[in-house]
Amino acid sequence: MRTSLLLILLLISATNFAQSEDEKQMKAIYDLALTEGKAYDWLNYLSNQIGGRLSGSVQAQQAVDYTKGQLDSLGLDRVWLQPVMVPKWVRGTPEFAYIETKPGLTTNVPICALGGSVATPDGGIKTNVVEVQGIEDLEKLGREKIEGKIVFYNRPMDPTQISTFSAYSGCVDQRYSGAAEAGKYGAAGVIVRSMNLRLDDYPHTGSMSYGETPVAERVPAAAISTKGAELLSATLKLNPAIKFYFKQNCKQFDDVESYNVIGEIKGTIHPNEIMVVGGHLDSWDLGDGSHDDGTGCVQSMDVLRLLKETGYRPKRTLRVVLFMNEENGLRGGNKYAEVARAKNEKHVFALESDAGGFTPRGFSFDCSDENLAQVQSWKKLFEPYLIHLFVKGYGGADIGPLKTDDLVLAGLVPDSQRYFDHHHAENDTFEHVNQRELQLGAASMASLVYLIDKYGTITSDKIKG
Amino acid sequence: MRTSLLLILLLISATNFAQSEDEKQMKAIYDLALTEGKAYDWLNYLSNQIGGRLSGSVQAQQAVDYTKGQLDSLGLDRVWLQPVMVPKWVRGTPEFAYIETKPGLTTNVPICALGGSVATPDGGIKTNVVEVQGIEDLEKLGREKIEGKIVFYNRPMDPTQISTFSAYSGCVDQRYSGAAEAGKYGAAGVIVRSMNLRLDDYPHTGSMSYGETPVAERVPAAAISTKGAELLSATLKLNPAIKFYFKQNCKQFDDVESYNVIGEIKGTIHPNEIMVVGGHLDSWDLGDGSHDDGTGCVQSMDVLRLLKETGYRPKRTLRVVLFMNEENGLRGGNKYAEVARAKNEKHVFALESDAGGFTPRGFSFDCSDENLAQVQSWKKLFEPYLIHLFVKGYGGADIGPLKTDDLVLAGLVPDSQRYFDHHHAENDTFEHVNQRELQLGAASMASLVYLIDKYGTITSDKIKG
Repeated sequence: MRTSLLLILLLISATNFAQSEDEKQMKAIYDLALTEGKAYDWLNYLSNQIGGRLSGSVQAQQAVDYTKGQLDSLGLDRVWLQPVMVPKWVRGTPEFAYIETKPGLTTNVPICALGGSVATPDGGIKTNVVEVQGIEDLEKLGREKIEGKIVFYNRPMDPTQISTFSAYSGCVDQRYSGAAEAGKYGAAGVIVRSMNLRLDDYPHTGSMSYGETPVAERVPAAAISTKGAELLSATLKLNPAIKFYFKQNCKQFDDVESYNVIGEIKGTIHPNEIMVVGGHLDSWDLGDGSHDDGTGCVQSMDVLRLLKETGYRPKRTLRVVLFMNEENGLRGGNKYAEVARAKNEKHVFALESDAGGFTPRGFSFDCSDENLAQVQSWKKLFEPYLIHLFVKGYGGADIGPLKTDDLVLAGLVPDSQRYFDHHHAENDTFEHVNQRELQLGAASMASLVYLIDKYGTITSDKIKG
Repeated sequence: MRTSLLLILLLISATNFAQSEDEKQMKAIYDLALTEGKAYDWLNYLSNQIGGRLSGSVQAQQAVDYTKGQLDSLGLDRVWLQPVMVPKWVRGTPEFAYIETKPGLTTNVPICALGGSVATPDGGIKTNVVEVQGIEDLEKLGREKIEGKIVFYNRPMDPTQISTFSAYSGCVDQRYSGAAEAGKYGAAGVIVRSMNLRLDDYPHTGSMSYGETPVAERVPAAAISTKGAELLSATLKLNPAIKFYFKQNCKQFDDVESYNVIGEIKGTIHPNEIMVVGGHLDSWDLGDGSHDDGTGCVQSMDVLRLLKETGYRPKRTLRVVLFMNEENGLRGGNKYAEVARAKNEKHVFALESDAGGFTPRGFSFDCSDENLAQVQSWKKLFEPYLIHLFVKGYGGADIGPLKTDDLVLAGLVPDSQRYFDHHHAENDTFEHVNQRELQLGAASMASLVYLIDKYGTITSDKIKG
């Protein structure tokens, strides 16, 4: 009885000691992030000196050069570029669209080509419009009512979803597959309501796929601003015979070489166990890509710097990876995983930040129940920083290809309310990022990496044995 | 054994039933707020049609008229104006200031008079500057080093505080009492670094008090933007002999009559038990008072509407109170409490929203441990809405005068990271409020009111007996 009591007391005091060491390290990380964080300065450069960084563009290459240079200056153990072939799609001259209520009577509306779309014919397309609430409506309408018309996908994001990402998931099929599906019924083109919960004048671009559709049969697709969508829908209700005109001259070029940018601190005890933290360096071309995903890149870079500057030397190898081409291909994420597998690298943890630079609320984890339980046991440590979400869920697109049974994949979960006001639109710009919110995200990520490094993850070996 | 088991099972199923009724009601409230909330439209009018609403101004009266009209249209049981005398301070023509490094060589810096300050002499004040890090430095310096000079309070907000309100508390004595204290040492004037965690060009006003200082001995006080403060401090380091010039012609007039705006739904079972929800209708004059505290007013108004429209009829009497003159006098809050005491009204709950219209994170409670424990037992109900903070703390300035042992005082706690970017400054404007964040706050407040009404608060009678 006495021995076991003593053991319990020892355990408690050991836990308390560890707790207080963890508290101290995390406080050091947060303090440094909030007083001398670098993420905001880096983002300022990426956003305001470089700007939108679409795969294959000059700006994407400038971002590669700039971030490599900055990582070089941090005194990491190794910094390198990982070559990857990426698609090159170019928007061309600005798109143009109007609603024609009767010949000569037109109202311009803001549109933008979806990423990957084909151009319209040189003179544009002008024809009748059929409004649908989703892909499933096409079958009900049939070829007869669709052929030769523009299909207008107008199902809005569900405002009652508290996570705006859930609302996005419930809509984005219209953007991604809408053109391929409408093409099967002979549509002349596709207009998609922007994935935006707000009513405003910004069209939001984003990736789309023609799937197996032969090149000759592909129909052009554009996003219309939410206000434009409301106007078009209201006009159609008054007169279903109105016409819509749009013109875009975007183009897909051959793939070009680009790079993932990688920096590494070698682990002192388990150098072969790799932890990855990252975001994607490419962005859409309309804004400057601040929230999507400049913030994820600069936060990830700052994770290594914050640990280094607070004197923490990781036991496991820690890598920052700035992935290229998340937006329209995921080539960087796939390449990184492919090379890792070829080299037989053992990844134990991967953390992605690709949900905006807003106040961090927590993390979502794609991992075993045992690993989730371990992470949740650290909840108390995050409480002073108002980090409260430790849930099962999605890690991230770029780290997804690394997935194994033992790997812990995690995604930073920032407050999501404002994200889709800016996502893939002209107003995804630097002034909408708050420095403290951004740096709190970097500190939260660095703290999680610290805890994972210190305590290790639970592998299926350990669970079995 | 069997009986007690049965009892437990009954209790559990009763709880489950209650839980699911509460879940349903809260979902109805949040859904309505996110689809047909009125708070944002009301705020649009207050901010963009009326603007800054300093006590005693025409705009403050317009806000009284507008909000009373809107409450009238909601079909409440009673809407009325409660007269209250308020101070009337007027800024006058825009302030002007510069740093003079040598005669003829000047750099303009943005300043604004603190609310309640006296004017400078007509020609302004130009003299040497002594920089201090707080009021406590005055004694060390002594009259000799202060007399005839401008005292420059430059202690910044502490960026390592996670709650920016804590950082504000640690600084605001410089603004509130700086002039009264510096005056005792013969200072010619006072310049205070703006209460802002960001470096920018906006000076932030706010209330100050001369305490018992006779009118003739009061020295003028102004806030300088954080960038201006950095420049002034850097210039002083290079040359302590530089001069600072500032001019302001603000003026305190006699008190004028104004109003608290009050609307009420009579309780069906306990009409004599009153629940209050409110914000303050006055604001500073530089911006349009959107976050401080237009949001608190329109959220409070929406609380009554959301409950009404979802078909919930409160058992207790529910009042919305839009307090006048929180910013420079608290006369409205004091008047409301004074009248309540004179009428022997029994207040059981008071909820204030005066911390910005950002994503709600939870509530802070000024109440007994028993009442806090009850509220915390509802935590699970709020989880789907990411409301996670239920802590002991401050209720709010306007509801403070109501305080009794039995009363539960509560304050909405929104995310605080961006608040002091805008607080009391020209950029506290409508476009910085996000509709969803605002409406989520209103729904969270309505949900808390619903639960308090349904389950009642725990009075000291109940605890004792």
